[in-house]
Amino acid sequence: MERENCVARDAQDPLASVRERFDLPAGVYLAGHSLGPAAAAVATRTAAAVRQWQQRGVRGWSEGWLDLAPRCASRLARLVGADVGEVAVADSTSVNLFKVLGAAVCLRPGRHVILTETGNFPTDRYVAEGLARLAANGTGSAPLEVRAVPADRLADSLDGDVAVLALTHVDYQTGRRHGAEALTDAAHAAGALVVWDLAHSTGAVPVDLHAWDADLAVGCSYKYLGGGPGAPAYLFAARALHADLDNPVAGWFGHADPFAFDAAYRPAADAGRFATGTPPLLSLAALDAALEVWDGLDLAQVWDKVAALGELFVSLVDERCADLDVAVASPRSPAQRGAQVSLRAPHAGAVMQALADRGVIGDSRPPDVLRFGLTPLTTCYADVWDAVEQLRSVLAELAWDDPRYRRPPPVP
Amino acid sequence: MERENCVARDAQDPLASVRERFDLPAGVYLAGHSLGPAAAAVATRTAAAVRQWQQRGVRGWSEGWLDLAPRCASRLARLVGADVGEVAVADSTSVNLFKVLGAAVCLRPGRHVILTETGNFPTDRYVAEGLARLAANGTGSAPLEVRAVPADRLADSLDGDVAVLALTHVDYQTGRRHGAEALTDAAHAAGALVVWDLAHSTGAVPVDLHAWDADLAVGCSYKYLGGGPGAPAYLFAARALHADLDNPVAGWFGHADPFAFDAAYRPAADAGRFATGTPPLLSLAALDAALEVWDGLDLAQVWDKVAALGELFVSLVDERCADLDVAVASPRSPAQRGAQVSLRAPHAGAVMQALADRGVIGDSRPPDVLRFGLTPLTTCYADVWDAVEQLRSVLAELAWDDPRYRRPPPVP
Repeated sequence: MERENCVARDAQDPLASVRERFDLPAGVYLAGHSLGPAAAAVATRTAAAVRQWQQRGVRGWSEGWLDLAPRCASRLARLVGADVGEVAVADSTSVNLFKVLGAAVCLRPGRHVILTETGNFPTDRYVAEGLARLAANGTGSAPLEVRAVPADRLADSLDGDVAVLALTHVDYQTGRRHGAEALTDAAHAAGALVVWDLAHSTGAVPVDLHAWDADLAVGCSYKYLGGGPGAPAYLFAARALHADLDNPVAGWFGHADPFAFDAAYRPAADAGRFATGTPPLLSLAALDAALEVWDGLDLAQVWDKVAALGELFVSLVDERCADLDVAVASPRSPAQRGAQVSLRAPHAGAVMQALADRGVIGDSRPPDVLRFGLTPLTTCYADVWDAVEQLRSVLAELAWDDPRYRRPPPVP
Repeated sequence: MERENCVARDAQDPLASVRERFDLPAGVYLAGHSLGPAAAAVATRTAAAVRQWQQRGVRGWSEGWLDLAPRCASRLARLVGADVGEVAVADSTSVNLFKVLGAAVCLRPGRHVILTETGNFPTDRYVAEGLARLAANGTGSAPLEVRAVPADRLADSLDGDVAVLALTHVDYQTGRRHGAEALTDAAHAAGALVVWDLAHSTGAVPVDLHAWDADLAVGCSYKYLGGGPGAPAYLFAARALHADLDNPVAGWFGHADPFAFDAAYRPAADAGRFATGTPPLLSLAALDAALEVWDGLDLAQVWDKVAALGELFVSLVDERCADLDVAVASPRSPAQRGAQVSLRAPHAGAVMQALADRGVIGDSRPPDVLRFGLTPLTTCYADVWDAVEQLRSVLAELAWDDPRYRRPPPVP
């Protein structure tokens, strides 16, 4: 395998032209699992939103702004295998997780356990535990409890106490992908609801919430979807549950008629009931421009490319870094992996800093994880070659006591 | 009184030059109580944030983005009479209200009532009731209850069941301003905590949370503060309470060390513990540019101008609309009023639509309220004259059955 093989694959990539719709950082950008690159259109769209605010003021709300969140939700529905009306765009992933978890536990009043995985993204645990504390403290008696077990014990832990199984579909550290359909089935068989966190899934791997028979889900739009730093997040609620789902963070934007200013809360009929406050319009304008890039793409091509990029990355590490102190931490089967390849290496933070100095942008997670996001709309096969080449060179040559290679600054 | 008197007052206004830092809509913009006008700098600042995202990608977080929310919080602290560390910028006003209410009720476990005012902004009621439902449903036993009484019965209703008094300082309909210090004292005397919603206060009237001895507060930055549509909101938590305040919507951005990815939640030492998810960066960049305009302003001059603009508006309505079907709905004393003057008139929606057609932008609220926001940094005395003149003309001349003057589209 040589670089020219990769260049040849890029020339035949049916998605190659999509890359031209982005304004990419210089070098090789493999951090789309953390912050996806920006579509060129986001600059014009956010500028237009600011200009509309300046020139039209509050009239902007009736001149298109109120349509933005529903339009983003419709665009997302296709990407997660849901119907329009089952997806809402609002708030952050964490806040949305609180809302859907709170609604879910109320649907299983005789059960007191939120089951999750030990290695779940920490904030997902914080959110569940905060919910449990509130219920307990607010009343003095609640036994709501968050139980975390290793992934291989999830199925066995689905007992009659479990109200909700709350999992992240693709692991943020290793890129390992859960079998969502089987776990959802197991939870349902045990009488529990399932909340999927799709932060590292949507735009990265196939997500088909209807096929999974999923109940609820949340997700992040600033990673593979390219919505921009801190872009508004989204959530999914299966239609069959709508009438019974009570958004605990109830606010006017989730009201059936927000501008009637009713004294009584009357939730919207669909997943829109999970909206709460006024949406951050400028961030939403950027998200809408980002999602527009996905419209009309052949998603099967996208998922094929994710698998191929990952296979290439893993095989190049195997082949070209065999004698170096680095190991593939992600599953080797593309079907069990997200769009991220993780490696384990000592001094991971320093390695990543050295890579950044050479123009390869990924990130690291303590203690020893290197993460490379293979964003299918912008990563090309030559990027993968170049990244592994630089990694090989860094691992072979780096002087670890060089003070430049301290632990890098944190990034979300 | 003639228009030239108003022009003369504008010429002597010590804040007149601040208006030049804004890009104002054409005509007379008196909707800053709903969506404040845009500082010119927001266009350059949001464009720079998008460019940084495009060129630097995820590195933006360590190249300034993480400083934005704390910097906005510091700027806000001065405007609400708080210390740095007592203010956090995050989420929407509604979500923040949920968080501080949830934290507050947990500090009064033997008490089960959230007391509020019948006419409070509906979403504030929805939030409190959602919180009460969650605690009840989550455990099957909680008696948490939202009790709403008319404003004149608040003091008498502060009995030993009240955990929290939750009020909006300046009423969204009438612009009536509560005596915050007296009500806070009364609540404390009854053993309750107080949560103030400052949505219509900060940037509009003096807010001195330390002088009020306030416990908790939330507020909106897209009205008088000019943060932009759906701009990130803020909250206040008094330092003495910090150690005991448990943010129920706990997330990684409220962790003491978000990027350590601890399995255990360990809240930030100060009000920053009320942050939850990743902040919406593009919206935050606009907010920062907006708040920068406030830096260095003499706030006493700002409050004097608010009072003077309101006095002028009320006296012109009295003088020039005396024979027309319109009445001042706001308190007549500037000390009891926000920066908004509300009028009551039949067909309020149609009246406002007709005013908009003549270049005067305010808004209406069902059933009969006309609202005019007198944003002190941008509204000039001549604006007030022109608005009342157009109002007089509309009320005197409008054919109410004209199909153009149906109820206008809704705006937040």
